Amino acid sequence: MSHHKTAAILVIGNEVLSGRTREANAYLAAQKLFDRGCKLGEIAVVPDIQDAIVSTLNRLRAQFDAVITSGGIGPTHDDITMDSVAAAFGVELIEHRFVVQLMTERYGEDGMNDGRRRMTRVPAGARLIRCEKTIAPGAHIENAYVLAGVPYIFESQLESILADFGDATHPFIRHEIDVALPESTFAHELKMIQQKFPDIEIGSYPRMCGNKPCGKICLSSQDQGALDCAVKEVKLMLETIHA
Amino acid sequence: MSHHKTAAILVIGNEVLSGRTREANAYLAAQKLFDRGCKLGEIAVVPDIQDAIVSTLNRLRAQFDAVITSGGIGPTHDDITMDSVAAAFGVELIEHRFVVQLMTERYGEDGMNDGRRRMTRVPAGARLIRCEKTIAPGAHIENAYVLAGVPYIFESQLESILADFGDATHPFIRHEIDVALPESTFAHELKMIQQKFPDIEIGSYPRMCGNKPCGKICLSSQDQGALDCAVKEVKLMLETIHA
Repeated sequence: MSHHKTAAILVIGNEVLSGRTREANAYLAAQKLFDRGCKLGEIAVVPDIQDAIVSTLNRLRAQFDAVITSGGIGPTHDDITMDSVAAAFGVELIEHRFVVQLMTERYGEDGMNDGRRRMTRVPAGARLIRCEKTIAPGAHIENAYVLAGVPYIFESQLESILADFGDATHPFIRHEIDVALPESTFAHELKMIQQKFPDIEIGSYPRMCGNKPCGKICLSSQDQGALDCAVKEVKLMLETIHA
Repeated sequence: MSHHKTAAILVIGNEVLSGRTREANAYLAAQKLFDRGCKLGEIAVVPDIQDAIVSTLNRLRAQFDAVITSGGIGPTHDDITMDSVAAAFGVELIEHRFVVQLMTERYGEDGMNDGRRRMTRVPAGARLIRCEKTIAPGAHIENAYVLAGVPYIFESQLESILADFGDATHPFIRHEIDVALPESTFAHELKMIQQKFPDIEIGSYPRMCGNKPCGKICLSSQDQGALDCAVKEVKLMLETIHA
């Protein structure tokens, strides 16, 4: 089975853009994709505005193998993601008969109010993404995966689609090295090592430890052997600088 | 003085896309912009790849009044934001004489290694964004503000540019109402209120309180009077549903 090699995450929600809510779903998904060796190429956060969702989804799904969206699939007026995804793919939005049946069984005919009916709608041709946490489904259409914004539901739905994004046999592996030096003292040498190992991603993340500069050098790759070699070179280099 | 009415945030950093780091700067900036009445229209997170930075910056600066970038302005090989911003604006990247002078005074001629020289570079024509936390500057060119990724430096540099994004006299104001009902029971009524107050942003954010659905309805606006009216209507509506 072939997996998505690259992905983007599209977060839909005014609550993130207004600073009310600290985004958590993209952070979780980023870790899960890394652990399966899928390269996350972009995270975009857009408001509850159909034009913004449609244009961003269409851009991302053309640019990456797959897009995971988060948010906007509940019953209220600001939940417009299903409508927007249908518009992006140029298909109708339909009440899914199986979901209507499930909800009717649970809530009865009288309980099928506008809000609940709204949550039965998916783009025509979509596969349902179901999870134990809620009766309302996410949707998978072509290379877009439409998940809920509520974190415990997002997490549960995400688990059910992760197999499409790779498996645990080819994860990215990360190695971090503590550094007690200012970056500028080893920047040149680190660049030389990066050039020697072009397939290893090497980043340097400085901070302050008390009033002294410190930080971490972070290396990642899917190739454990190459990673070990690069880590060894970075450690040797740091010993030379320290000396 | 005229302020930027809309803004976007462009976060540059593999460490966010790999799930290593939970993004904090966009969250902080979102709150600060809200408090000054500037509408944050998009957050984008892209990798340390020049093409991705250039294309995203050019898209965002055309679409919004201003763009704040975070990350990639240190001395190491993965810090390519200044190069990318210069490329996006089609200007040269220059060693800024004032920054060279400041750094040389602090570190001496011998201390001006490749890494430190790298941090003296800004796009030609840019204004420096300086702060107390570091000698290395950010840069402001046209409608782009280029800030550091290290959170305490980002915060300090952000404070020094916020006046361009509005002032505390016209903030967005938020009012939150606790709800102990499933969203689907009030979705229709809330939509009616939203239609009555099109200039108020109304969102509903459900969660679970133990095993019962609960959540918050969140209203925001720059118009305190209209906000008060809408809040009153929502509260009345919820009482009716509860009854």
